[in-house]
Amino acid sequence: MTSRRPSLAVVGATGASGGVMLQILSQHADVWGEVKLIASPRSAGRKLVVRGEEREVLPIGEDVFDGVDVAVFLVPDKVAALWAPVAAARGAVVVDSSSVFRLDDDVPLVVPEVNPHAARNRPRSLVASPDCTTLSLIVPVGALHAEFGLRELTVSTYQAVSGQGREGVAALREELGVVAGAHPAGRELGTRPGDVRRALGDRATSPFPAPVALNVVPWAGTAAGDGWSSAERSIRDECRKILGLPHLRTAITCVYVPVVTTHSMSVHLCFENEVTVARAHEILATAPGVVLFDNPAAGDFPTPSDVVGTDPTWVGRVRRSLDDPQALELFLCGDNLRKGGALNVAQIAESLATSVTRR
Amino acid sequence: MTSRRPSLAVVGATGASGGVMLQILSQHADVWGEVKLIASPRSAGRKLVVRGEEREVLPIGEDVFDGVDVAVFLVPDKVAALWAPVAAARGAVVVDSSSVFRLDDDVPLVVPEVNPHAARNRPRSLVASPDCTTLSLIVPVGALHAEFGLRELTVSTYQAVSGQGREGVAALREELGVVAGAHPAGRELGTRPGDVRRALGDRATSPFPAPVALNVVPWAGTAAGDGWSSAERSIRDECRKILGLPHLRTAITCVYVPVVTTHSMSVHLCFENEVTVARAHEILATAPGVVLFDNPAAGDFPTPSDVVGTDPTWVGRVRRSLDDPQALELFLCGDNLRKGGALNVAQIAESLATSVTRR
Repeated sequence: MTSRRPSLAVVGATGASGGVMLQILSQHADVWGEVKLIASPRSAGRKLVVRGEEREVLPIGEDVFDGVDVAVFLVPDKVAALWAPVAAARGAVVVDSSSVFRLDDDVPLVVPEVNPHAARNRPRSLVASPDCTTLSLIVPVGALHAEFGLRELTVSTYQAVSGQGREGVAALREELGVVAGAHPAGRELGTRPGDVRRALGDRATSPFPAPVALNVVPWAGTAAGDGWSSAERSIRDECRKILGLPHLRTAITCVYVPVVTTHSMSVHLCFENEVTVARAHEILATAPGVVLFDNPAAGDFPTPSDVVGTDPTWVGRVRRSLDDPQALELFLCGDNLRKGGALNVAQIAESLATSVTRR
Repeated sequence: MTSRRPSLAVVGATGASGGVMLQILSQHADVWGEVKLIASPRSAGRKLVVRGEEREVLPIGEDVFDGVDVAVFLVPDKVAALWAPVAAARGAVVVDSSSVFRLDDDVPLVVPEVNPHAARNRPRSLVASPDCTTLSLIVPVGALHAEFGLRELTVSTYQAVSGQGREGVAALREELGVVAGAHPAGRELGTRPGDVRRALGDRATSPFPAPVALNVVPWAGTAAGDGWSSAERSIRDECRKILGLPHLRTAITCVYVPVVTTHSMSVHLCFENEVTVARAHEILATAPGVVLFDNPAAGDFPTPSDVVGTDPTWVGRVRRSLDDPQALELFLCGDNLRKGGALNVAQIAESLATSVTRR
């Protein structure tokens, strides 16, 4: 083993997630040698600051990956599908945030708090990072599974509109301006049949298939067969893979709510063994990446407005079923733009740093 | 059996639910003889219109119930606890909307679409009507139970702020004015840690223990032991009683969302028998009090903005679990101020009308 520090490439450095990655690189303990910033040829030549130094953005291409030990990809699916295998062929270990490789049998899907060992077996030199909704869910669920043995996972989401990017936030803002805004007539909206839909009838396009202001929208993604949405299928398949439970019973329902940022979830867990709230509290209080916030009589339970801007998954409302000693309920909140964005990718890359340096 | 039409007393006639009851009496087929309007002595002497005729409101008292066949109570718990037994002692059958008698073993808890027969056995001459959340849930669930045999009921709610009455609506309106209102700074609220809580820190009192605008609040009611809220316990106990399944496995999580009116629920059902979506669709399409609205690829799923102002429970997102042929998912919406208010009470009273006339 050489003492040379491993080199890192950040692909998509000029995007929103790339910007967060550069912040994380400046904040976390520095394990990296050279850091290359890579983007499309259109953005090449721009200068960005990382670890206090200005660096020029390089255009993506085959040769740019020569000498790179770890390449993190924070780019759209199409770009990842094209270039991640190129980077791997040039000798880099690729950590990819896109959905392209998540369910590939030869690509580990890794959450460092839950299945860090999975990153060691990477026949394609690719490691994938899960969807942001899965990430908030799986960190506390993985900790409880390690203790009690998970048998069934039933989840109903309360997803923030920023899950649909800037368009989602813009749609909520615009609709709120109509239904709750400055004009006096708006004060009564939302109380009569169809009035929200009527008021919003001629508004601009929205990424949601129904109004999201003063409303909830039980549909996320595209139709994925048998009535399921693609978002619901993804969470199921990713949780099964990360937990190594290919036959886990699941039932996922994805719903958008008028919240800007931070996904919430109501979670029903059935275990192989009997559970107690006291033991679940101990596990959640010490699990990495989890904040336990559970004393409802004192007003302590997570809500998006408490959690937005923070990295961990916050968990509260921990209850054992009144009717089944093997079932546990909880309510959790996680900022979909933090752990769900660049942070998990950075954590995977850092966990690889000590093992990937080329001789 | 005499041919005299039964007489009706509306107790709480001057309240909000009383007003809805008078509308219903004017709209439904008229099965009643004399109709007495009753309220507190403070409201006595007011004149209200019912079935096209002006009638004077009578002050509540023992003698006012003489000759009354059916008395519907649309009053707060304290008033119901005091006066419902008095009306029963004077010979009336009481239909009560309060929570006082719902779990009394000697008082049937009735939803005419689900357990109409239960109203026949009323040793205290009292019949209770469930909580509004239970009502929206139990109508489709009861229809599916009759076919498949319910074994487990897991529910996560998306409850409207009008569940906390005018104070709840006022709190949402005031908070929306701050976080999404006229002033330009409001445009960025909800995106940084704690900014919603900070902006609302010095606002007026709210019935919710956290901000509800741009937020979700996973707590409803008071602490009911072992981490459960009173609202969650009530739904469990009422569903078990209405379905006649005292050992039904349940897990209920109640969450307020920034919606004015109409409660939504994500429902996970496990049955004794295998289910199919096709058969569930047939049952829901023909069940009284249910509207099936389930073609998500065409945008057909219920949202509060579709459903507000209507009487039935709207059901969509019907899916069989991918991993359990005995489990069914669905998403439902019901206007908490319609079926959940005076309508169920009116339906119970009408179902009693033919059997209660005194000889």
